[in-house]
Amino acid sequence: MIEPRDRYFDDWTEGEVFETEPHLMTEERIRSFAEEFDPQPFHVDTEAAEASIYGGIIASGWHTGSVLMRQMTTFLGPSSMGSPGIDKLRWIAPVRPGDQLRLRLTVLETRISSSKPDRGIIRFFQEVLNQNDDVVMSVEPLIFLRRRT
Amino acid sequence: MIEPRDRYFDDWTEGEVFETEPHLMTEERIRSFAEEFDPQPFHVDTEAAEASIYGGIIASGWHTGSVLMRQMTTFLGPSSMGSPGIDKLRWIAPVRPGDQLRLRLTVLETRISSSKPDRGIIRFFQEVLNQNDDVVMSVEPLIFLRRRT
Repeated sequence: MIEPRDRYFDDWTEGEVFETEPHLMTEERIRSFAEEFDPQPFHVDTEAAEASIYGGIIASGWHTGSVLMRQMTTFLGPSSMGSPGIDKLRWIAPVRPGDQLRLRLTVLETRISSSKPDRGIIRFFQEVLNQNDDVVMSVEPLIFLRRRT
Repeated sequence: MIEPRDRYFDDWTEGEVFETEPHLMTEERIRSFAEEFDPQPFHVDTEAAEASIYGGIIASGWHTGSVLMRQMTTFLGPSSMGSPGIDKLRWIAPVRPGDQLRLRLTVLETRISSSKPDRGIIRFFQEVLNQNDDVVMSVEPLIFLRRRT
């Protein structure tokens, strides 16, 4: 099997599934990320978070998504040409300090670009799971990948 | 007019449009964000980025989205109850060091939650514009907001 990072577009097959190692969400980083990008009380203020519907500090959804991106780069090598967008992002369950998040990646659909024949487009299904195997986030990104020449 | 931050669900009207002040994307933060969350060559390696289809360093899409979230909190106050997800995210044009990004927010649709009558759900349309008024990113988030009691 060709490792995902060494693959061109042509080496991916619909239905394949991969999984990463876990990533620890520390309270310190949850808080500092949210202070910069999403300073709502349930992300940065312990007392307000405990009184909220979440019952304690939770990670910003953009922090969880950014960690997912980090884990996705495990599978992206020199053939990656970036992404035109994502669809159907769902924040399904809260992410709390101490959670261990890992990415499960499924290949949904592969197609050659009709306008730019040097690349293909893959639609993936990404699920972020915690240490209890709860899916906390899911999303369908599109990724451009160079074709094998 | 009630300021957005002081609003409950009931105070929002479909079709309203708001805009934020600009946010400067520095090369230093583009690079450090990407080193942590999206270390692909076109985000972190000047020479590789210049040789890529992007012609130079560009911001991670998750960085641009996180800055959008920061700007969205300009409009979210105590009634915000978080987001179940987003749809139709499109990274339309590259974001480069020195770009000044601002958020244009349009209220697409407001509806009362059928299962939880203490809150409503608003679907917004968010556009991120640069200093040339190019739309570099757009997305449709859902936000839960507490109702006026």
